[in-house]
Amino acid sequence: MKFFVTGGAGFIGSNLVDRLLAAGHQVAAYDNFSTGQKRFLENASSYDSFTLVEGDVLGLDRLKDAMAGCDFVFHLAANADVRFGTEHPRKDLEQNIIATFNILEAMRANNIRRIAFSSTGSIYGEPQIFPTPENAPFPIQTSLYGASKLAGEGLIQAYCEGFGFQGYIFRFVSILGERYTHGHVFDFYKQLRANPDRLHVLGNGHQRKSYLYIQDCLDAMLLVIERAQQKVNLFNLGTDEYCEVNDSIRWITQHLGVCPQLSYGGGERGWIGDSPFIFLDCSRVRALGWKPKLTIQESVISTLKYLQNNSWVPEARA
Amino acid sequence: MKFFVTGGAGFIGSNLVDRLLAAGHQVAAYDNFSTGQKRFLENASSYDSFTLVEGDVLGLDRLKDAMAGCDFVFHLAANADVRFGTEHPRKDLEQNIIATFNILEAMRANNIRRIAFSSTGSIYGEPQIFPTPENAPFPIQTSLYGASKLAGEGLIQAYCEGFGFQGYIFRFVSILGERYTHGHVFDFYKQLRANPDRLHVLGNGHQRKSYLYIQDCLDAMLLVIERAQQKVNLFNLGTDEYCEVNDSIRWITQHLGVCPQLSYGGGERGWIGDSPFIFLDCSRVRALGWKPKLTIQESVISTLKYLQNNSWVPEARA
Repeated sequence: MKFFVTGGAGFIGSNLVDRLLAAGHQVAAYDNFSTGQKRFLENASSYDSFTLVEGDVLGLDRLKDAMAGCDFVFHLAANADVRFGTEHPRKDLEQNIIATFNILEAMRANNIRRIAFSSTGSIYGEPQIFPTPENAPFPIQTSLYGASKLAGEGLIQAYCEGFGFQGYIFRFVSILGERYTHGHVFDFYKQLRANPDRLHVLGNGHQRKSYLYIQDCLDAMLLVIERAQQKVNLFNLGTDEYCEVNDSIRWITQHLGVCPQLSYGGGERGWIGDSPFIFLDCSRVRALGWKPKLTIQESVISTLKYLQNNSWVPEARA
Repeated sequence: MKFFVTGGAGFIGSNLVDRLLAAGHQVAAYDNFSTGQKRFLENASSYDSFTLVEGDVLGLDRLKDAMAGCDFVFHLAANADVRFGTEHPRKDLEQNIIATFNILEAMRANNIRRIAFSSTGSIYGEPQIFPTPENAPFPIQTSLYGASKLAGEGLIQAYCEGFGFQGYIFRFVSILGERYTHGHVFDFYKQLRANPDRLHVLGNGHQRKSYLYIQDCLDAMLLVIERAQQKVNLFNLGTDEYCEVNDSIRWITQHLGVCPQLSYGGGERGWIGDSPFIFLDCSRVRALGWKPKLTIQESVISTLKYLQNNSWVPEARA
């Protein structure tokens, strides 16, 4: 099989590329390096079965050319910056909606019909049901990021019906682990590296969130695309637990051996459109035989160790 | 109040413009006349309180200028052609998603914060629950039209959360009545006018659909924007009944006094992405005191009478 991976130089994308290459597949990675890192592809570059195309998902012609000969598309390229949607709303429109449309059109032009898409638990908005199942009541969007991912899901589903595509839509919780480049562990680590005595926390620290370790996430995705064969295959991906931001702060400060003075931005939400509680019902993917190997706490610690051993990462993403 | 109505020369838009003007409001209509009709604005043009701007919803600068001084936006402009999504998918992306984004950005630039949006019952895909309530289980999209309207809903909801907008989202069944310019009554009327002896029907004729009379639809929208004051106000709009396509054929042929030979395209669906059964739970809008005045049968007959008395309409939309 030849896989096309958009965002292939990113956190999830580059880890996926490594896994696919190790399993003997051919892989074409596509990335504009706006947030992706060439160093994440150092291992991949040693494979003859790997090609890299530097390009933007807004460039439809380039996408069409780059996709030629591929069998399956992992569309992971995105504006993954959930926090700052209101400062540049066009970014979510372009990078998440128009980009997904372009991917679908490039697939159609190349007669490629299988796509996996990184969606998000944020599309449940502020749900009433926890853990939240895939068929939760029709949600109301609370963030541009969630709205733009919802739009991407809808387009993919429509292409499944209209053009005979097969779609795999993964609604992720926050992913942690090697090559992690944004999110609360990253922010806290950077703050504490600059000044171990102070830590500023968005919100009141009681936000309840779920996290999943990158290799567990990849195990799930690779299992699902092998086993699930509906027209549209929708899966929540997370652990069967959640933690408070304050729990995570305790694990982080203990691991780093620091005791900072904490200050809080206050409020139930860390930012406009933040979900105070994310906890997904993952029984659907578990029924396929998957379960995560790391707990949330173990994922947080493994992420810290990665950041400590790769100090260029926080510097590159300054 | 000064209202801005996109698609103001269209079927629903021009009827809304007339109602707003009659109620003493100022109205600016915005239309590119791709499907809208100047003749639909003949009555409106006699009001000093009415202005018309010819422009496209893809033109953000023009939209910003045209919206200046308005208090409330009815965003009705759309590619309303639910059937042919797979022939030109870009049309749904541009006319329904990017256009809605532009409307929101033009509102933000003008500090206008209230928007009403014409969504569709099609966003429920093929639901399991009938009548289908607004909080039905999270649907899977089956048409580009539905997917693009869902994207529009999500963007509006995100602007409500992120920018303090107030949104009114109406999920319509098919609307019938004066100035109706597309849909099954229109198609059947045109076929029978050309040849009263034959009628070709998409699908098997057993598709179950709901319809709502235009003035009932406008009564509901105007009541809702007055009474509902949540951040996001989501309302199904339809009648508490449905009919089979074959029922509608019987009413139409009886009214026209014709007895055509029927041929059927076959299958449960009239086209790819057609919902075989649309029947919305409208108890939420009924709880505000609204109820429709016309039955589906009466709406079909009133539509036929309109088409018979305005033979330029089927000719203009040839």
